[in-house]
Amino acid sequence: MILEIGNKEIKNRQKKYFQKLEEKNVDISILFSTTDIFYLTGFHFRPSERPIAFYTDLEQNTHLFVPKMEKEHAEEYAVIDQVHCYPEYPGLTHPMKYLKDLLQFNNLKNKIIGVDAKGYSSAKGYQGPDITDLLDVNNIISIKSVVEKLRYIKSQNEIELIKESARWGNLAHNLLVKYTKTGKREIEIEGRATYEATRAMFETLGNGYKPYGSPAHAFYRGQIGPHSAFPHSQNQNAIIVSGYNVVSQAASDVWGYKSELERTMFILETNQQQETFFNHMIEAQEIAFKNIKPGIPASKVEEEVQRYYQENDLQKYTKHHTGHNMGLLSHEAPFFDLGDHTVLEPGMVFSVEPGLYVDGLGAFRHSDTIVITNEGMEKITYYPRDLESLIIG
Amino acid sequence: MILEIGNKEIKNRQKKYFQKLEEKNVDISILFSTTDIFYLTGFHFRPSERPIAFYTDLEQNTHLFVPKMEKEHAEEYAVIDQVHCYPEYPGLTHPMKYLKDLLQFNNLKNKIIGVDAKGYSSAKGYQGPDITDLLDVNNIISIKSVVEKLRYIKSQNEIELIKESARWGNLAHNLLVKYTKTGKREIEIEGRATYEATRAMFETLGNGYKPYGSPAHAFYRGQIGPHSAFPHSQNQNAIIVSGYNVVSQAASDVWGYKSELERTMFILETNQQQETFFNHMIEAQEIAFKNIKPGIPASKVEEEVQRYYQENDLQKYTKHHTGHNMGLLSHEAPFFDLGDHTVLEPGMVFSVEPGLYVDGLGAFRHSDTIVITNEGMEKITYYPRDLESLIIG
Repeated sequence: MILEIGNKEIKNRQKKYFQKLEEKNVDISILFSTTDIFYLTGFHFRPSERPIAFYTDLEQNTHLFVPKMEKEHAEEYAVIDQVHCYPEYPGLTHPMKYLKDLLQFNNLKNKIIGVDAKGYSSAKGYQGPDITDLLDVNNIISIKSVVEKLRYIKSQNEIELIKESARWGNLAHNLLVKYTKTGKREIEIEGRATYEATRAMFETLGNGYKPYGSPAHAFYRGQIGPHSAFPHSQNQNAIIVSGYNVVSQAASDVWGYKSELERTMFILETNQQQETFFNHMIEAQEIAFKNIKPGIPASKVEEEVQRYYQENDLQKYTKHHTGHNMGLLSHEAPFFDLGDHTVLEPGMVFSVEPGLYVDGLGAFRHSDTIVITNEGMEKITYYPRDLESLIIG
Repeated sequence: MILEIGNKEIKNRQKKYFQKLEEKNVDISILFSTTDIFYLTGFHFRPSERPIAFYTDLEQNTHLFVPKMEKEHAEEYAVIDQVHCYPEYPGLTHPMKYLKDLLQFNNLKNKIIGVDAKGYSSAKGYQGPDITDLLDVNNIISIKSVVEKLRYIKSQNEIELIKESARWGNLAHNLLVKYTKTGKREIEIEGRATYEATRAMFETLGNGYKPYGSPAHAFYRGQIGPHSAFPHSQNQNAIIVSGYNVVSQAASDVWGYKSELERTMFILETNQQQETFFNHMIEAQEIAFKNIKPGIPASKVEEEVQRYYQENDLQKYTKHHTGHNMGLLSHEAPFFDLGDHTVLEPGMVFSVEPGLYVDGLGAFRHSDTIVITNEGMEKITYYPRDLESLIIG
């Protein structure tokens, strides 16, 4: 079983990329984005202090610029016309000077240079000049969102990888639930579920599976009891207590592609207040599901969810928008947000996760992954959403 | 057992930060770096499409600017004078406009504004104007490396956290070795070692342990047999075969602090060629250890290692510099690199990892974490380095 985006599709992405460059009259393009370089070449690498860049020349050849330590790695895995390397960063000569010399093999006079950033940037100790300052050119334009926008719409192959991700997220989630018992600690439950799901995943899929990220995993991430009221809380290694509500998170990376599954669950029992908020959250999520369809602005979905909050006096319990696109990154644009008017198109993959947060009680949030279809939407995650299925322990 | 940097030390960092700002005559400072914000406030958060910024005002008060969903979280964990929030990104009003209004509570006329970047940036779907374009000021300077340079020198508390990280990395490594048997697959070995080490870590350290990253873990990351010749290879779920050399990696995050332990090991047996390269690698690492001391430029260490390579005709097998600083990030400046002339100071924590890479045979690289002392250096990682201890399976 081979789970990957094949060379043909990568080549097709490059073709579409060149079309976009032509529309913008870009002659030479330079990209530093790790994600976009992976998307356009299939070369997955660990970003570090050492710059990596993708560029295209006047003849529409594709080039990768990597440190010496990644040369053979890039040659083995990248769909690319040519790989160039520099000795090391910082090195005796700064890598950007090598890149400048390579780019200047082209006659840059009066040419339009498209860049996704002025230079390489990394928190990992990198410092250096902007490539745009080193080149003797006066026509530089930003193409920052060109590849990002190609990535908005997923191909059938990409959707299959996201569905595969959701499948193993579902297993990890089932195991998380299985091991969640009162008195147990977060890390023990998560560690066991993650280990067993990961193992099952590799044993089932065999050599054709490359995670390019994290294999199957399931976590609570500190969202246990009242602490779950922090939507982005951190692992607390908290103890499971009867009556708590907890919020889970499960997924797996499949050749870099992600899905998102989250469930609000209750340990052994619920009280009236918990049920009330749970039911409101379910209703808000249903409203989102019903409204999602191609041709409408992403903001419309959020407006409908917000209308429900207003009608039920729930605004004070909300803290974030209803969802985000995903694919090679866990969060991508566009967003189900009042300020995002991107028109929905078939092939876009979103999380749907309206949330209610109650001080002293905790979080109420399911997250499901959906793909927009020609008619409306299709759910990719499929773990039960109803209250009865979610009383655990 | 409390493993953290306490509020007093965080306050002290802020004091040093203000001293650096005063030296540069900076009146107002703005930081977007996730790592630097954590360093200066103790607030650990997951970066997303939603901007987060730290700023200081004319009275040297400290401010955090966060999305609504992080407000209570920041108020709970950050050492900060004031937390401000905006509704959401992208939202009806762009977050940078809120930030602009907050900054303009100060009288900015003729003031010097220090920024670590012109604006927030994130690969996760964020787009927005530079804050430097929104503010009506004409005196903006870069303070990009101010906090990074404070982070170069670790305090005694930071060194203790790094030592704690190394301790649990050592356990994970021992378990990795224990479960490495011919016929076993990478992921099974790694998963079991990681799960058991993580569990032991939490059970031993209790509630006082916050990873702010990954608890104890040990991996091969695809560096098994000939594939290990790619220094930054990815997980291949490879099978362990007698006679292979493998390269491990083990560590744990402790309140965000990292260490690095890597060992070149041999499955059941070695051949003459493997032993020759292994001995050269050990010798190169010893040369680095012997030369590391305060007062010399970082490049000196690399020069001495390179001299050994030259004398033994090994240059063609080398692919990267000898080491990097670390702390809150796995790689930080300065580097043991020909082009890095930063003077070594007590408290700097480096990896020491000269590597030899042989096509068809694989990698030869140990990585140890060391701290520079008043006299020379102290090893923080302590797993055996000799050949006999490293024949496993």
